[in-house]
Amino acid sequence: MNGAESLARTLAASGVTVAFTNPGTSEMHFVAALDRVAEMRCVLALFEGVVSGAADGYARMVEKPACTLFHLGPGFGNGIANMHNARRANVPIVNIVGEHATYHKRYDAPLNSNIEMLAGQYSAWLRTSARAADVARDGAEAVAAARQPPGRIATLILPADTAWSDGGKVAGRVPVTAAPPPAAATVAQAAKMLRGEVPTAIVLNGNGMFGRGLTAAGKVAAATGATLFSPYSTPRIERGAGLPSVERVPYVVEQAVERLKPFRQMILVGAPAPVTFFAYPNKSSVPTPPDCEIYPLARPGEDYVGALEALADAVGASHTEPTRQRAERPVVPTGAITLPGLAQAVAALLPEHAIIADESVTSGRGMMAASRGAPPHDWLTNTGGSIGIGMPLAVGAAIACPDRPVLCLEADGSGMYTPQSLWTMAREKLNITTVIFSNRAYAILKGEYANVGAGNMGPRALDMLEIGRPDLDWLSLAKGMGVPGRRATDLDQFVMALRAGFSESGPKLIEVTL
Amino acid sequence: MNGAESLARTLAASGVTVAFTNPGTSEMHFVAALDRVAEMRCVLALFEGVVSGAADGYARMVEKPACTLFHLGPGFGNGIANMHNARRANVPIVNIVGEHATYHKRYDAPLNSNIEMLAGQYSAWLRTSARAADVARDGAEAVAAARQPPGRIATLILPADTAWSDGGKVAGRVPVTAAPPPAAATVAQAAKMLRGEVPTAIVLNGNGMFGRGLTAAGKVAAATGATLFSPYSTPRIERGAGLPSVERVPYVVEQAVERLKPFRQMILVGAPAPVTFFAYPNKSSVPTPPDCEIYPLARPGEDYVGALEALADAVGASHTEPTRQRAERPVVPTGAITLPGLAQAVAALLPEHAIIADESVTSGRGMMAASRGAPPHDWLTNTGGSIGIGMPLAVGAAIACPDRPVLCLEADGSGMYTPQSLWTMAREKLNITTVIFSNRAYAILKGEYANVGAGNMGPRALDMLEIGRPDLDWLSLAKGMGVPGRRATDLDQFVMALRAGFSESGPKLIEVTL
Repeated sequence: MNGAESLARTLAASGVTVAFTNPGTSEMHFVAALDRVAEMRCVLALFEGVVSGAADGYARMVEKPACTLFHLGPGFGNGIANMHNARRANVPIVNIVGEHATYHKRYDAPLNSNIEMLAGQYSAWLRTSARAADVARDGAEAVAAARQPPGRIATLILPADTAWSDGGKVAGRVPVTAAPPPAAATVAQAAKMLRGEVPTAIVLNGNGMFGRGLTAAGKVAAATGATLFSPYSTPRIERGAGLPSVERVPYVVEQAVERLKPFRQMILVGAPAPVTFFAYPNKSSVPTPPDCEIYPLARPGEDYVGALEALADAVGASHTEPTRQRAERPVVPTGAITLPGLAQAVAALLPEHAIIADESVTSGRGMMAASRGAPPHDWLTNTGGSIGIGMPLAVGAAIACPDRPVLCLEADGSGMYTPQSLWTMAREKLNITTVIFSNRAYAILKGEYANVGAGNMGPRALDMLEIGRPDLDWLSLAKGMGVPGRRATDLDQFVMALRAGFSESGPKLIEVTL
Repeated sequence: MNGAESLARTLAASGVTVAFTNPGTSEMHFVAALDRVAEMRCVLALFEGVVSGAADGYARMVEKPACTLFHLGPGFGNGIANMHNARRANVPIVNIVGEHATYHKRYDAPLNSNIEMLAGQYSAWLRTSARAADVARDGAEAVAAARQPPGRIATLILPADTAWSDGGKVAGRVPVTAAPPPAAATVAQAAKMLRGEVPTAIVLNGNGMFGRGLTAAGKVAAATGATLFSPYSTPRIERGAGLPSVERVPYVVEQAVERLKPFRQMILVGAPAPVTFFAYPNKSSVPTPPDCEIYPLARPGEDYVGALEALADAVGASHTEPTRQRAERPVVPTGAITLPGLAQAVAALLPEHAIIADESVTSGRGMMAASRGAPPHDWLTNTGGSIGIGMPLAVGAAIACPDRPVLCLEADGSGMYTPQSLWTMAREKLNITTVIFSNRAYAILKGEYANVGAGNMGPRALDMLEIGRPDLDWLSLAKGMGVPGRRATDLDQFVMALRAGFSESGPKLIEVTL
């Protein structure tokens, strides 16, 4: 057995059964091995940003890694923007990056580059296999490293000769160390803080925002009056009717300052302390009140669910009923397109157990508020601020959860970084409804231009922030990649298109012209 | 004057008058400054791979740098694949990468990353400005570093507060050290080699392949019988009727070995010694005969033109008439689409002084042979093997040479890495005719699969190498980005579309279904 086959079999045996790929010459033996490892589902993308973003979306939903397949340094390079987001999401991913044969490196052939330096920026674990006999063991260790809580990026660089040479031998699973719970004293201190009269925010992260973790957080909130938050950049929030409510800290500095103003205590569960997304002249980088005590209950890599359950116990809330969001849906809207109207339509029609991949930026700011009482669903957002993640996330989520409808809310500017996602949606017949908010601008930058005090905008600056001239025609783009689309010029059309998207199988695109 | 404006003015004063941009919040002050620096032409792209590839194409044609504008680490990350190619092309580029404000870095906000580590892989010069008063001087030094022969990538990281703070002061040009000529003894030794009877190849690079350098090389070849080559991955060859012929070393190993077999001497002018693009089991990484003496006349950064003129002088060829390619054009073809027929059509119709950005991969392998006697033109190729360069190169070349028609030969697989190029072509009304060779496959990988000995291809491997299911519809993609297109299903339609592309202004796309 060659090294490549030993790796593919080892990955599958370790529970890695989905590969998002964009291969080249140096990866051909790994590709060949896929024909002999039926357990591995291979999903091709036409651009590597789709690969990395899809691996992220997949991991957010199933809490285990997919593997990727990249072609040398430039292939990994194309995946970097969404790898940056995935690193911030703390998701498990196993990257396989093909490399020149060990003996070919010294010739510095055109595609040669320093993959270790490049991938090292994004990888908690990094190794270059030295020989075919090591590849499987390296792969098993990569999987274990990726699964190390809270979820990490592990990158295995695979020189072509280690893939094609004989001597490979399938390796067994490498055990993963469970996330340690916080110390009892730490939990006791947080409980003490919560028992006082001081207004307290609890900022959740990772698996503290869904399932058992969310239930425990909801009990604590119900018993103590604490308010549950997530960072603005948040990987996954389970929400909707019957679930405890978790608010995102707002993006806009003034709004974040205003929202956090009441709190004098903040307990962090795997989340970083809030900071502003960017710096702005004469504004603080920290939106929390200066006298707010910030207390980490669980640090990244510790057991968030255990911490929240221990905290519930410590505040005597183990049997408390969590505060649950009331089921409430707006009526189906009609009339002219408005941003509130679009949010209302989504909230009115969202199916149960939908997954929302949200990169709607300025256009979708009212979406979460409107849909808070919709049937239970998961909301995924951009975790690292690198745009072009929405459609790739949707691809990954749809592969992870084939029985759940996926709604992708995508800004037109952001969507153009990874439009190739649509092709993979079509090829894999994924149940994704993509809504493109066509405002023909980097609208967020128009706000930011003012926020950073850049003065009055002249015509040439404006030209860098508007993406009309020519207008993008998303129906044509989607058609070009095999995804049927509809244009919505009023809310009635939007509602009709959304209903069709949710009820018919396969991908759909809706362009909303704003 | 703030730092951003001092930088924009300094760049323009240093001769950098084109900016390829994809800005974000941290670059808003630089964008604002553009309204006050009328000499700077700003070209927006919707994806950073277009930015880096266009800066490369621009520099190849005018031998001076454009600047880029990237948004933090992920923005630079999206530009890496074509930055890799640009580094291999030895072109001058000045990258401006926005960064968080100096005091904001420590908060590790979501978009924070180590830009120095990332950009350092691709930059011969790298600096992070420390304060507004330094920015202009840093910019002037970046331009000088980029212009250092043979052309380098210089990256200036611009923290937002150094851009927005006052204290900027325009800096003057920093002198560039001229490329040193090779030592007289080195030239004498090369001349001695050429005076013998030993079959000799001369491998050119950079400005040895056009203008005065090419003329001198042609004289040497005419006087000594040496054969002129370029590396397979070559930035720019001036060629056609009346010019000395330069052959690319073939990509396919067996063909390269066969073509180089007659030579017992090889003189390098800025070029690396030939190596195979990839390693293949049981094949050598070096295609030259083992007993071929390889002699560097000029190393990268030395004066190639001076070296070739000195060599011509040393072999007594200063007044020799170079061997000139005879003018010859095939007749305009008709009938069914074939690869030779497509090459024949291009050769028959290519206008004088056209620029060809060639990323046609397998489909275009006959293009250069067919067009060798066409009117003089420049041929640009992928220099680093990172695909997705063709259309961005065409954008840059068209901005650099607005009076010359640009023909972009693009494979469908490669084209999907940077399809956003089409939008910039439309916005800037560039005279680019893009031909998409739609074979609906990563056809080169099918060959490579066999070459690396991966065995018989099963259905799942094949599925990773074929990009039909669904078929891409390039006319719809182009329409979606404002570029009119035609489909050619026979040579007559192709000829008609090509004529229209060359004669009408603005961008056109021709999809050839193979």
